[in-house]
Amino acid sequence: MGASSVLARIRSGNENALARMIQGDPILVDVLPAGEAIPELAERIILHAGPPIEWERMCGPMRGAICGIAVFEGWADDLTHAANLAETGEFQFHPNHHFATVGPMTGITTRSQPVLVVENRAFGNRAFCTLNEGLGKVMRFGGNDKSVLERLKWIRDVLGPGLSDALKTYDGIPLKALVARGLTMGDEMHQRNVGSSSLLIRELAPRLARTVRNQSVLGDILAFLSANDQFFLNVAMTMGKSIMDPVRGIDGATIVTAMSRNGTDFGIVVSGLGDQWFTAPVEMPVGLYFPGFTEEDANPDMGDSTIVETIGLGGFAMAAAPAVAGFVGAGSATVAAKSTHAMGQITVTKNPEWTMPSLDYEGVPTGIDIRLVVETGIAPLINTGIAHRNPGVGQVGAGVVRAPMECFEKAVEAFAHSMGLS
Amino acid sequence: MGASSVLARIRSGNENALARMIQGDPILVDVLPAGEAIPELAERIILHAGPPIEWERMCGPMRGAICGIAVFEGWADDLTHAANLAETGEFQFHPNHHFATVGPMTGITTRSQPVLVVENRAFGNRAFCTLNEGLGKVMRFGGNDKSVLERLKWIRDVLGPGLSDALKTYDGIPLKALVARGLTMGDEMHQRNVGSSSLLIRELAPRLARTVRNQSVLGDILAFLSANDQFFLNVAMTMGKSIMDPVRGIDGATIVTAMSRNGTDFGIVVSGLGDQWFTAPVEMPVGLYFPGFTEEDANPDMGDSTIVETIGLGGFAMAAAPAVAGFVGAGSATVAAKSTHAMGQITVTKNPEWTMPSLDYEGVPTGIDIRLVVETGIAPLINTGIAHRNPGVGQVGAGVVRAPMECFEKAVEAFAHSMGLS
Repeated sequence: MGASSVLARIRSGNENALARMIQGDPILVDVLPAGEAIPELAERIILHAGPPIEWERMCGPMRGAICGIAVFEGWADDLTHAANLAETGEFQFHPNHHFATVGPMTGITTRSQPVLVVENRAFGNRAFCTLNEGLGKVMRFGGNDKSVLERLKWIRDVLGPGLSDALKTYDGIPLKALVARGLTMGDEMHQRNVGSSSLLIRELAPRLARTVRNQSVLGDILAFLSANDQFFLNVAMTMGKSIMDPVRGIDGATIVTAMSRNGTDFGIVVSGLGDQWFTAPVEMPVGLYFPGFTEEDANPDMGDSTIVETIGLGGFAMAAAPAVAGFVGAGSATVAAKSTHAMGQITVTKNPEWTMPSLDYEGVPTGIDIRLVVETGIAPLINTGIAHRNPGVGQVGAGVVRAPMECFEKAVEAFAHSMGLS
Repeated sequence: MGASSVLARIRSGNENALARMIQGDPILVDVLPAGEAIPELAERIILHAGPPIEWERMCGPMRGAICGIAVFEGWADDLTHAANLAETGEFQFHPNHHFATVGPMTGITTRSQPVLVVENRAFGNRAFCTLNEGLGKVMRFGGNDKSVLERLKWIRDVLGPGLSDALKTYDGIPLKALVARGLTMGDEMHQRNVGSSSLLIRELAPRLARTVRNQSVLGDILAFLSANDQFFLNVAMTMGKSIMDPVRGIDGATIVTAMSRNGTDFGIVVSGLGDQWFTAPVEMPVGLYFPGFTEEDANPDMGDSTIVETIGLGGFAMAAAPAVAGFVGAGSATVAAKSTHAMGQITVTKNPEWTMPSLDYEGVPTGIDIRLVVETGIAPLINTGIAHRNPGVGQVGAGVVRAPMECFEKAVEAFAHSMGLS
């Protein structure tokens, strides 16, 4: 095939891919037990963040979270027992991404955890993600003690069903408009969700008041939601997955459909190359640490949350969130605007519905093209939380990290090969 | 007295004034019937926005609101009867500002309306303001039909007592930190309060769930609050009044302690000149109109809401709220930053606790000095809503307006006279 027909195939593929991204219409419709939302999720199946990985190569916090969830699900008596079961191959591990699912940090998903359900009404697909646990010691950062498991039980038995009942009084909450508003409130929907979380709570509170019949429980639910600025992160992630799944497998498309990390490997998936992962060792975030912690404590980059960068938010929308630039150690508002403009060099369009007032209503840079990443040498910029490298500790900071260039180089090579060019 | 001793007296006065502004510690403590909060508020006393004005000189929307509130309070049988009573001198009119009170637009305050109570804990004084009625046909924009009065009844009988019960479970909600957060969420606290309203609702929702025993009423209250992006405006105004009242009457101080308009006159009050109003004809806002309305329909500038500009918010903090710049027709983010910097030329300090991420954490320009206004020829910039000029219609747009230079010229002249310089 000649070079010009290859280019035409790429152009057509990417046009199709971008149209699908922009057309996506994500609606938050329900909260369901994961086992109900994802029927394949049987006993002893554990979904995790990032590309596929075996127990032996997993990082500390992911192992910690797995041991915790095995106790939570009743598959192990205690953490030591759980680790033994994991070592002897008693659990099946799969990436969330293989089941229309995403999860922040360790991203552990098992059958009895409630998951957010976002339906992409333009294409009819659904995506899933567990509920945000709040700050402090939490499973997504590798926490697994009694307090972590108690909270997960409350989320399973009280919060999940409560949100489900409230959501059933709607035809769903449209998320695109809510995100557009969040962008005008200083959120980039990865490390800063204070505006969008507040908007969602405002939206849900009157419904919860009408559906949660026990007023003390209602107070607990509202207090939990109100105390959590990052509640919307998991919603944004679910939305991202629901938008990107219909963009998978488009012939000729060089657009990234997923970026994700398991704390050991960083992986990307590219539309025209099906569901193949292109991986490289994950990098270390650069950022700010909570008092008492340093980069010595940090685990390498982790989580499916990079799905938000894949749809033009997070590090890509840094200009919308000057306040987050300081929090992740990325500097001032001026630097934030520069970061967003740099991401414009590796993306093929700007989202006309998600605009940034601080850049005089420029749209967020959207559609990462693996060719542009390799050509410019500019790797995607990601805003992220930082977990302690040991199991059971939790979050120690927040920062920025780059997607490894090697993933994109491998993908470009495979793409050329698939086009008969190598 | 020599020029150098006059300057020393001014310097000392302004230092004192600024210290009091920055030290102010406004706490939202309660919601009470106005008659309870302000004991002087007897039958047939009507407080209004702006400097003193008689019925004969009042603009259309203010007359409309007065007739409506007279019916609401049971002092008149209908609007025509109310107008007759007003014309024959049956009501006493006073500015809100004379009773530690502020009110948006027409700003009508009477005894049975519930008012927000903000206590300035640094000085022990309290300030008051009615609750925001939401959008559409409302009394603050001159609305007075059945729907307006029905809503006011619900606010009096349900919302006010509900909020009061919830607030009594706290030692108050500190407002300075909440405003600091709102500034990072794209609010300037005058024409944009979506972030701060959301934060306040998040804060109150769990408390309301524990104190409002009737769950259907709770749902109504949360739905009303959730539907109102401007709910925080009245809180910000009450806060502003509570901060500025202790700054009144400081010898030698050239700082503006109040700016306000009644729809006919614009008035300012200056710290070193006691409680005297310096007035001039109010100007016409320049802005954007709702569909179906033009500047032909607009009433001149109105309301006590300019108290927020007096404390460095609103038009002064435009740079924090690029999204509002478009809404009020003031242009882009770039123009918003320029507006804030221009206000820096007529103010004497920057508030270290209220900073703007978009300007790399510069503080909002604070402390309007009448000398700087006259010297530079830069009049304070105000973000404002626009009311229809006829009674009973309501809001027709939003825009920006300048405080009339004449107020400042008169004040400087009176100040010079008071210093023995004229």
